[in-house]
Amino acid sequence: MSASPPAIVLVRPQLGENIGQAARAMLNFGLTDLRLVAPRDGWPNPAAGPAASGADVVLAHARVFATVADAVADCGDVLATTVRRRGLSLPALAPDTAAERIRVAPVATAVLFGPERSGLETDDVASATAILTVPINPGFGSLNLAQAVMLVAYEWSRKEALFSPTVRDDLEPPAPFAELEGFIAQLDAALDRAGYFHPPDRTPTTRQTIRTILTKPGWSSSEVRQLRGMLRAITEPRPPRRN
Amino acid sequence: MSASPPAIVLVRPQLGENIGQAARAMLNFGLTDLRLVAPRDGWPNPAAGPAASGADVVLAHARVFATVADAVADCGDVLATTVRRRGLSLPALAPDTAAERIRVAPVATAVLFGPERSGLETDDVASATAILTVPINPGFGSLNLAQAVMLVAYEWSRKEALFSPTVRDDLEPPAPFAELEGFIAQLDAALDRAGYFHPPDRTPTTRQTIRTILTKPGWSSSEVRQLRGMLRAITEPRPPRRN
Repeated sequence: MSASPPAIVLVRPQLGENIGQAARAMLNFGLTDLRLVAPRDGWPNPAAGPAASGADVVLAHARVFATVADAVADCGDVLATTVRRRGLSLPALAPDTAAERIRVAPVATAVLFGPERSGLETDDVASATAILTVPINPGFGSLNLAQAVMLVAYEWSRKEALFSPTVRDDLEPPAPFAELEGFIAQLDAALDRAGYFHPPDRTPTTRQTIRTILTKPGWSSSEVRQLRGMLRAITEPRPPRRN
Repeated sequence: MSASPPAIVLVRPQLGENIGQAARAMLNFGLTDLRLVAPRDGWPNPAAGPAASGADVVLAHARVFATVADAVADCGDVLATTVRRRGLSLPALAPDTAAERIRVAPVATAVLFGPERSGLETDDVASATAILTVPINPGFGSLNLAQAVMLVAYEWSRKEALFSPTVRDDLEPPAPFAELEGFIAQLDAALDRAGYFHPPDRTPTTRQTIRTILTKPGWSSSEVRQLRGMLRAITEPRPPRRN
C-alpha cells in the first residue's frame, strides 16, 4: 500500500494567480488534492487557470470550504506552514522531516498555507499538530506561496519511488479531525456551563490553548470516543447503582 | 573549511522578471553568485529589480559573460540542468545528489540553467561534467526557471548548519510523571463519583485504557495544570457570575 499524498490547503488565499501557480507546483510533483478555505475573491477565479500553465485538472477538482476545520475534517494529521515561530507549543518540522511524517501517516495529512501577505493566523495554527517551517536565509526570507507549496510537494515526492511503509502499522490511526472537533465542542460546552471561561476577554486565548492541548496527542477514534464517554459521565452522572 | 556555494549561471535568459525571481529564489537559500550569459534584453534589465522582491544585492553583483566557457572559467565543476536526457554520455544527478557533489567539491561549482522556452542547447550541455535533473511528474513537467533555481539552492542549503531550524527549542518538556499521576487520580475520582466504572470486573481494563490515553500526549506541566483546572471547573461548577 502506498502512502497517502497530502492535501494542500490554502487558507484565505488572495490572488487567483497564486492559486494557479500553487496548482502547477503541486502537479509537478504529483499532488492533486487542492482545498481552498474562504478564497478572498471567490471560486472559481478566472486568473487561476492561466497561471496554472496546464495544471487544470488540479483546479477543476479543487474544493472550497468555509473553515479550516471543515477543510481538514477527513484528515488525521494537520501541519501548519509558517515562517514565524508562534507562542504555541507545537513541534517544528523541516520539509524533509515533515515529508517523512506524511509518508508514514496511516491517514491523509493536510498541510495548511496562509494568505500571501500575512500567513496563517494563530487560530489556524492552533488546529495543527505540528508546524512545518522551511529553513531559510535568516537575513532574507521571501518565499512566495507557490514556492512554499512546491517545496512541500517536492520533498514529499523525493522518496516516493523508494518508499515502503513499515512504521506505525500496529498503531490505530489518528481520528479524522471532525471526531476530535466533536470532543472539543462537547468539552467547550461543559466548560461554558461551568463558568470556566472567565474573564470573557481571555476566552479566545483559553480556547486556543485547549485546542492545542487536545490536538497534540493524535488520539484514535476509539480513544476520542472513550474521552467523550468520560466527559459525558462526569457532566451527566447516573444515579448510584446497586450491584 | 566550509563548502563553496555554487554559482548560478543563467544561459541566454529571456525575461528580466525571471532573472529577478531567480535572484530572489537564490537569496532565500543563501546563494549570491549570479552569472548571466548573453541575456536577451541586455543588462541591467529594469524588470529584474521589482521581481527580485528585495534580493537587490544579488542583482547588483551579477556578472555578464559572452559565453558559457567564460562564465564558468573559474569553476572546478559544471552541472547542466535539463529536463530532457541528451544523447551525451553524462551522468544524471538528482538535486540532492548534486548538492552533495557541490558540497564536497574542492572549488566552486557552476550550475547552468537554459533559456526559459527552450532550455540548454546541446553545445551548452557539452561544457558540463554532469547533468542535474529534477525528478518530476512524468505526465506534467512544468518547472519555471526560478523554481528550478530554487530547488537547486534549497538542496544546497539543506545541510548547511546555518539554516537548520531551531527545532523544539521553545517547547516545554513533558511534565514529571507525578504531575500526570495527580491528574489521572483527579479524573479517576470524578469518574468514580459519576458511576463511570461499571461493571466492576471491567474497571481494571478501563483504568489501563484511560492511562494509555493520557500518557500518550506528553503534556507539559502547564498543560497538565490547565487540564486539572478544566476538570475541577466541570466537577465543581461555580455559581453564575454577574459581570
